[in-house]
Amino acid sequence: MASFLPQSICLLIEEFSKLPGVGPKSAQRLAMHLLHSPDGRLRALSDAVGDLKKGLQFCGNCWNIAEDSVYRICANGARDRRQICVVEEILDVVALEKTCEYKGVYHVLHGVLSPVDGIGPEQLKVQALVDRVRGIVGAGDAEASDSALRASAEETDGTCAIEVILATNSGLEGETTALYLMRLLQPFKLNVTRIARGLPVGGDLDYADELTLMRALQGRAAYC
Amino acid sequence: MASFLPQSICLLIEEFSKLPGVGPKSAQRLAMHLLHSPDGRLRALSDAVGDLKKGLQFCGNCWNIAEDSVYRICANGARDRRQICVVEEILDVVALEKTCEYKGVYHVLHGVLSPVDGIGPEQLKVQALVDRVRGIVGAGDAEASDSALRASAEETDGTCAIEVILATNSGLEGETTALYLMRLLQPFKLNVTRIARGLPVGGDLDYADELTLMRALQGRAAYC
Repeated sequence: MASFLPQSICLLIEEFSKLPGVGPKSAQRLAMHLLHSPDGRLRALSDAVGDLKKGLQFCGNCWNIAEDSVYRICANGARDRRQICVVEEILDVVALEKTCEYKGVYHVLHGVLSPVDGIGPEQLKVQALVDRVRGIVGAGDAEASDSALRASAEETDGTCAIEVILATNSGLEGETTALYLMRLLQPFKLNVTRIARGLPVGGDLDYADELTLMRALQGRAAYC
Repeated sequence: MASFLPQSICLLIEEFSKLPGVGPKSAQRLAMHLLHSPDGRLRALSDAVGDLKKGLQFCGNCWNIAEDSVYRICANGARDRRQICVVEEILDVVALEKTCEYKGVYHVLHGVLSPVDGIGPEQLKVQALVDRVRGIVGAGDAEASDSALRASAEETDGTCAIEVILATNSGLEGETTALYLMRLLQPFKLNVTRIARGLPVGGDLDYADELTLMRALQGRAAYC
């Protein structure tokens, strides 16, 4: 292909091909589309890519990406700081915010545990979550937090008003991460919850897979 | 979404969404991928988009995009200038060149006739093709070329050694364009051919649609 197309087009096709979900054919089509676009469109896209990270930083509290040192949800006094929703990615925050249902704050892990890909707790914002929870719970629970890394089997009877909602995805890695975090946070005697897994709204029972149905049965609640 | 993500990310998502085949979700995922990419990758993509059209121009002969005023295939003395393959797009040239089968030159129409989209012969490089053919046929056929725009029904018995291969796509618009060009070029008494339409290599007869099978039957040739 390189010898039949000008260098600049080949270069753009190569760069587009590196993006996730963009194959060589799609990359070609995107490059051709831009070639027939007005110069202003090209400049706008070029600038948007180049300026993407300008002025952005991670919020030291929830580890979401922010224009200031504190993410706007963390800085919002109206949000309940005693309710922390733990999510995998930045876009999960956007998805949850769109529901207008949640009034607490977030914690972005920036991934999930995946031993196959060499991603352990050190690669995620797990320690930051433990530190954050420890900070909220206060010095009184310092002893318990020391044993946090042990997978504790003790019952969390004396839970406090702080709730950590584990909202990782419902796949194998998301479930593993949620289980890991649950055990890690148990010693703090928090209220650790997991988002409900069941039949999606509009879902057909006979089209749902066995695991989803099993979860839907296990998670059944009083009909009100 | 705008209120939950920084401005620069929203801007990039918006720009990506304008690309063909990229929906809002894909645009979000692409932006997130770039956000987690090293700065060098971002700069490379930004520069590739910004510099795409730099130094590029259309070849005045075949209307392909070129780094010089003449496309390299047109400038190649080894190519047969008496065989012109008419294609819709620049990428069609790439696809045909990959076969290493064709030794002639090309003519890029930059689209197909599509009355629904308001694309007539004036929006395509049709007149350029007629002028080019007229130039090759020479002054001797000047009279015939004057009537080129009339859809002529006369037989092309006295064809000359010049061949125009109509290699537009095999859809409705491609076929219409090929038919239009065939009628337009008939008065020049050229050898106007159409690329074969039939069963693709590896194709199953019982999975092929009726039109493809009809074309395959109509286009059958002596088995050698």
